[in-house]
Amino acid sequence: MNSDGLIYLDNAATTPMCDEAAEALSEALAPAFYNPSAKYRESASVSERISIDRAAVRSALGGSLGEVYFNSGGTEGNNTVLFGAKGRKGSRIIIGEGEHDSVYAPAMELKNSGYDVCLAPIDKDGSVNFDKFKQLLNNNVSLVSIMHVSNETGAINDIAKFVRATKRVAPGAIFHSDGVQAFLKTPLSVAALDVDAYTVAAHKIHGPKGIGALYVKRGSKIKPLILGGGQESGFRSGTESSPLIHSFAAATQAGSVNFAANYSKIHGYREYFVQKLKQTVPDVAIITQLENSVPNILSVAFANVRGEVLLHALEEDGILVGTGSACASHHESRFKKLFGLDDEHIEGVIRFSFSHLNDIREVDRVIERIKAHTDRLAKTMRQ
Amino acid sequence: MNSDGLIYLDNAATTPMCDEAAEALSEALAPAFYNPSAKYRESASVSERISIDRAAVRSALGGSLGEVYFNSGGTEGNNTVLFGAKGRKGSRIIIGEGEHDSVYAPAMELKNSGYDVCLAPIDKDGSVNFDKFKQLLNNNVSLVSIMHVSNETGAINDIAKFVRATKRVAPGAIFHSDGVQAFLKTPLSVAALDVDAYTVAAHKIHGPKGIGALYVKRGSKIKPLILGGGQESGFRSGTESSPLIHSFAAATQAGSVNFAANYSKIHGYREYFVQKLKQTVPDVAIITQLENSVPNILSVAFANVRGEVLLHALEEDGILVGTGSACASHHESRFKKLFGLDDEHIEGVIRFSFSHLNDIREVDRVIERIKAHTDRLAKTMRQ
Repeated sequence: MNSDGLIYLDNAATTPMCDEAAEALSEALAPAFYNPSAKYRESASVSERISIDRAAVRSALGGSLGEVYFNSGGTEGNNTVLFGAKGRKGSRIIIGEGEHDSVYAPAMELKNSGYDVCLAPIDKDGSVNFDKFKQLLNNNVSLVSIMHVSNETGAINDIAKFVRATKRVAPGAIFHSDGVQAFLKTPLSVAALDVDAYTVAAHKIHGPKGIGALYVKRGSKIKPLILGGGQESGFRSGTESSPLIHSFAAATQAGSVNFAANYSKIHGYREYFVQKLKQTVPDVAIITQLENSVPNILSVAFANVRGEVLLHALEEDGILVGTGSACASHHESRFKKLFGLDDEHIEGVIRFSFSHLNDIREVDRVIERIKAHTDRLAKTMRQ
Repeated sequence: MNSDGLIYLDNAATTPMCDEAAEALSEALAPAFYNPSAKYRESASVSERISIDRAAVRSALGGSLGEVYFNSGGTEGNNTVLFGAKGRKGSRIIIGEGEHDSVYAPAMELKNSGYDVCLAPIDKDGSVNFDKFKQLLNNNVSLVSIMHVSNETGAINDIAKFVRATKRVAPGAIFHSDGVQAFLKTPLSVAALDVDAYTVAAHKIHGPKGIGALYVKRGSKIKPLILGGGQESGFRSGTESSPLIHSFAAATQAGSVNFAANYSKIHGYREYFVQKLKQTVPDVAIITQLENSVPNILSVAFANVRGEVLLHALEEDGILVGTGSACASHHESRFKKLFGLDDEHIEGVIRFSFSHLNDIREVDRVIERIKAHTDRLAKTMRQ
């Protein structure tokens, strides 16, 4: 239970800050207030601190082939690439069918302004179908954006394979991956993936909201979205929020150091949760493909129960879960259809997302309450 | 002296956080961590808190004719308007010659892509010349961006007059004002100014870095810069940084409640500073027009002394000042020429910027050190 006495299982929507990040933020607020672009040494020291933080994030990403630029978060990172690497009008832009709205909405805007935007179909587990993706490739492709991990299901896309296929057919294309749900949830080296750009956000890794980073490979041509004073080597202008950057770096370091321990703990929670859930509610459909997903996300569909009704019933018990991307409630149905669910299950989608701050006893409690609610709700629905 | 034992006179570059903002930030970090777009009541309460904070900022701006949208800061606000209200290609865009880089750079980008971008000349005090501005108006104008207060000199532009003149000739034009240096430094009602859009940033008013707001008048057509999950009524997507928003609102409220007291205190500092400076260094040129400027900024030019050399000499004494916009060091010379300084003074520009956290005794100390350094440096220069 968290400090509010609640069981929080919506960590894919956002995470509570870890102690390291909170301490770094508090500590940095006073001494790091100087404008890093001013000319006195107090500013130089803020600026040096940012360089150290940048190196920490770059290193956690395996970003030795490029640089990391701080920005306001995942949405800005995704928008920067879609609008800044879009090639000439009429060229083809491929995005996954299940991309986050911050990729999908810019892509639709580009479609309206004359780009040939294609959606690469996803399979029932939420991963992009590789063969169907390949069929969309031609040498007119200027930009590809495929998320590393699905925020809906946790499915992992084999990005390195997608990059190789893309570069074979369209060597000049920019390949971007939205890594917001992947960073520190699965082993990662952006250099090994060989992407041109990769988006991450602090608040998904127990860092603060309002800060993120875009990795850009050296030589990959992406124009800045926000112009001005030339901060972040001219790639992202605006006075740097040094305390947020410092806190982000602290969360990154904590997540890196504890990666193996957290991974195994969270993986254990999910395994136990699924096992108990199947025993307790046999007609539940497991959407997430357990063998090819990050361990913290579990999407399931209950039979004859509306996800939102179950969400609110669990809320009464102090259990917080999601019905999918918090940001995408207005086009939820886009995903439900894609998961290939039958009529009994299509309205019953719930996303459970764990963090290392959860506790195994919470799982027992949640299963017990799910059992009680599904029995009651299914009965009501059949009447 | 601040907690580092320094005298900080570069408050136009950025400000230390006030206690109210720091407390609001710390308090909000844990309880406000929930994603405001999720479906349980903890999220609804974060979302309601944001509404209250929004109302606080809107009210301090006098923004009853429109709405305030939170974003990552002044640079993003200015970029949003320049790129989102630009009208059709070939239309005229007028900006002040002395605008901040976050207006100037997007305008130059638009110029390169086929817009008729005109710079409205500024006078020696940094304010935009109204008659010369009027000559640039025609019915092909789609966008005007004139800063409310110059970050270089503190000069106040009579925005209401500029708006009236613009709307008379080009009724459909969008009028934006960058209010980053004006907010809580001069009495303000964006409704009275009748602007379509107005940019503010938290870190200039003792709030945190990484958060700002754009006021948009109802009915004024400005497209969002960043698309995605539809937060901020679709005007600015991305998970809201609720703790930063809360801290910004707290700084705004503290600044509003103490406006008169702070204004009079800061005005007193500057008056005393100028009087002592003129007595002590008679050949100093006062760039700021004291009768038409915010009280916290004082731009001066020393004779036969390089500004940067004096800046570093003062730094050795623990006194931090600016040589103009921290963000614009690379085109500093653009401004020096505009101020109409003679050869003796042109390299000697220093910007002193005060806050209510300064102390009158600090002024005496700074004057004393300026005297010592200018005597010594001028001697060196004449040798």
